[in-house]
Amino acid sequence: MKNDKDKKLVEQITSMDVDFAQWYTDICKKADLIDYSSVKGCIIIRPYGYAIWENIQRILDQRFKELGHENVYMPMFIPEGLLNKEKDHVEGFAPEVAWVTHGGNEPLQERLCVRPTSETLFCEHYANIIRSYRDLPKLYNQWCSVVRWEKTTRPFLRSREFLWQEGHTMHETAEEAREETIRMLNVYADFHEKDLAIPVIKGAKTPSDKFAGAEDTYCIEAMMHDGKALQAGTSHFFGDGFARAFDIQFADRSNQLRYPFQTSWGVSTRMIGGIIMAHGDDNGLVLPPAVAPIQIVVIPIAAHKEGVTEAARAVAERLSVRFRVKLDDSDNSPGWKFSEYEMKGVPLRVEIGPRDLEAGQCVLVTRHDREKTIVPLDGLEDAAAERLAAVRDGMYEKALANRERRTYTCRTLDEITQKLAENGDGLVRAMWCGDEACEDAVKEKTGVGSRCIPFEQEAVSDRCVCCGRPAKQLVYWGKAY
Amino acid sequence: MKNDKDKKLVEQITSMDVDFAQWYTDICKKADLIDYSSVKGCIIIRPYGYAIWENIQRILDQRFKELGHENVYMPMFIPEGLLNKEKDHVEGFAPEVAWVTHGGNEPLQERLCVRPTSETLFCEHYANIIRSYRDLPKLYNQWCSVVRWEKTTRPFLRSREFLWQEGHTMHETAEEAREETIRMLNVYADFHEKDLAIPVIKGAKTPSDKFAGAEDTYCIEAMMHDGKALQAGTSHFFGDGFARAFDIQFADRSNQLRYPFQTSWGVSTRMIGGIIMAHGDDNGLVLPPAVAPIQIVVIPIAAHKEGVTEAARAVAERLSVRFRVKLDDSDNSPGWKFSEYEMKGVPLRVEIGPRDLEAGQCVLVTRHDREKTIVPLDGLEDAAAERLAAVRDGMYEKALANRERRTYTCRTLDEITQKLAENGDGLVRAMWCGDEACEDAVKEKTGVGSRCIPFEQEAVSDRCVCCGRPAKQLVYWGKAY
Repeated sequence: MKNDKDKKLVEQITSMDVDFAQWYTDICKKADLIDYSSVKGCIIIRPYGYAIWENIQRILDQRFKELGHENVYMPMFIPEGLLNKEKDHVEGFAPEVAWVTHGGNEPLQERLCVRPTSETLFCEHYANIIRSYRDLPKLYNQWCSVVRWEKTTRPFLRSREFLWQEGHTMHETAEEAREETIRMLNVYADFHEKDLAIPVIKGAKTPSDKFAGAEDTYCIEAMMHDGKALQAGTSHFFGDGFARAFDIQFADRSNQLRYPFQTSWGVSTRMIGGIIMAHGDDNGLVLPPAVAPIQIVVIPIAAHKEGVTEAARAVAERLSVRFRVKLDDSDNSPGWKFSEYEMKGVPLRVEIGPRDLEAGQCVLVTRHDREKTIVPLDGLEDAAAERLAAVRDGMYEKALANRERRTYTCRTLDEITQKLAENGDGLVRAMWCGDEACEDAVKEKTGVGSRCIPFEQEAVSDRCVCCGRPAKQLVYWGKAY
Repeated sequence: MKNDKDKKLVEQITSMDVDFAQWYTDICKKADLIDYSSVKGCIIIRPYGYAIWENIQRILDQRFKELGHENVYMPMFIPEGLLNKEKDHVEGFAPEVAWVTHGGNEPLQERLCVRPTSETLFCEHYANIIRSYRDLPKLYNQWCSVVRWEKTTRPFLRSREFLWQEGHTMHETAEEAREETIRMLNVYADFHEKDLAIPVIKGAKTPSDKFAGAEDTYCIEAMMHDGKALQAGTSHFFGDGFARAFDIQFADRSNQLRYPFQTSWGVSTRMIGGIIMAHGDDNGLVLPPAVAPIQIVVIPIAAHKEGVTEAARAVAERLSVRFRVKLDDSDNSPGWKFSEYEMKGVPLRVEIGPRDLEAGQCVLVTRHDREKTIVPLDGLEDAAAERLAAVRDGMYEKALANRERRTYTCRTLDEITQKLAENGDGLVRAMWCGDEACEDAVKEKTGVGSRCIPFEQEAVSDRCVCCGRPAKQLVYWGKAY
């Protein structure tokens, strides 16, 4: 039974089938993830949103360090001359950077951009500190904010400032650098699948879609509820192009001067947008347990009855030893609380009322499927752990099923158009000849662009979906965020 | 016995008695804390320096959270109009901010400053989310970088960009806000004394030295080796001035609209400069165990002898369970290693050689006083813990003794001049009438400015040190970083 107040809370969210974009924005606001400010194109990340980011940071930072990476902090400014050093790189980024032109009341001699990414700064530093093969590899990472002057912005997905990590590594050989590139892509993929419960496709970007200055760009692509793809992380192999541009040389094992090989890789607060759009529903956010600020909310039922509040508090205290737990013993109605914590995506709800108390049990409700389980208070911790593991698995299966339902294998452009029209947006698996003209033509004629050339190849046809010439590769095509 | 290479390493540092500023810069570079880049006035914080900052962050962040604070992230830009909203604040900061005037190729309609501090952004957000006394207190904190366009810069102490945390809180009553201001000052003081082993003086800034827009500014002041004072943390009480300027109102318990009361407080990477200058010596950095990236370095002696390297490795593994440990089994000489880890300020060194092995013992050497202790391998962990605790205590006592030796109680301006000339720079304890003209005159005539009005007052005279009129307060005077 829900009262009017509960209904009102839920009614405030637009249904995702009615207006997906509005549903997304509603969740960002109603789940207290963000607020807007007078700084156009930037968001305020509120405590509940920031706590998700802190959990993401903690997990990833530990994995990076286990693999030998060290954190550093580079200046947030890049002098124009330094940005200009690598030709492809500056062409890619110059149109979208913010320029600082004055310090205090005085104009600067050389203007500075606010870093959109820090390859140039890392390279300048590496030129200072790399002398010998003994100095390699250098495995540096930085957690910071970056700025890209986007025209249209959306919370988490695309904003003028965002938080991210950027790894920048230098290696003795191209092979080692290539291994690092793939190793870090796999770290991102594992994190998405295991911790965020989001299935991803690993692959390479087509040449036209590579990072500015990179030889190869790899990515993980995730499917959102609306059938669009989200590029959730990227990892780049640079060869020795930047090293040459920045004159980074080392004495190799036979004392010859050589250029080292470079990678960079990054994920950002965009992942929070991915969590919302891969898992959320019309009742709000659905958070994977690994990064949920509150993993379990404990709600007393009929709290005025003797012993209920005390029992709820005892349960919350017990669970706090192993989980991030919140007890809500406020005087809001249970119905209001159910709605509130569903909106906030808390993975597991524990209800305890007078009858439960009598029976020595409580009720566990999982957020993603609203499944109820009645469990004895004895051994509650293990039951909660089992439920949270089931939530992660259930969320993953649900997201995977959605992706499979919305993945279409096509052999002709007409077939693409037809499948998309019949089933809505999704990922299209179709062969490609490798010609950029065909890549462009597919997008122009069907609306879906190349997302990636997946590592898991399959010849679904021997002809290019566009020109009919012999096909080189299977490509995933889709609309992207 | 040290070989030539060892000597060279140590010789590279200027002695602090010869040139304190150069000694400081040498440590920043030789201990691998920082590097310079082409970004003037900014530094690169290298892995060893950044790891100190990560330890500082971890400890403080946990304390903030235990006190109920939540982390958020605000945009790094402040539109000029927003910065202008609080008159005193903008007057204080406008001359030293960096201005963004272009996004991509287009000029901005309103220029944006890169945040020098975020009171204005927090206030704009608080105006959105504070409605009722039930929404109070709001206890927010942010870890970020800020920019102040300084003319002369020094690593950690004063740079155009630095990393910090800024707490911003809103309260129902002035009393509550005042309590918060002092509570957080005490958190900073405790952290400095217990974790950084730096004794501090807690006090209030004189009115002329308050933060732009604050009613009261409190600070902790620490003494450096050269007798200068370092303002190591500040905490501000704003009254309801910003709330009025930003129209932040809440319905109080009797449903009347009122303005809330505000605080802010911050510490920064400047603390790393304080650690260097309060504890360092002519052999390099001396790090307090709580924030040292490596707490214990294990060095095998005569590593070619049977069993030594294995024993060193076993010792390092055992110690790793409780401490941050590094084993250096490289083929550099022990003497080189001693110099290297002294330079890096590792608090405790464990040496183990063939004779130790035979005797079932090892040698512990504490960095700050080079004291050797021979301990049995049995129970080594407890011995190491005892030594690390002794290091913290010994470092604190040493820093305190330095401060006491360099603190002069004076009753006249002549006495100040004489004590400083005889004993070198230091902190002067002298009475003040409260008149700004006298504050200025003391600085002009003796070179020392007011550092703070200490909480621990004592009437060392009943007359103002400058004008001879009746004194109001004891003030600490000194030269400042």
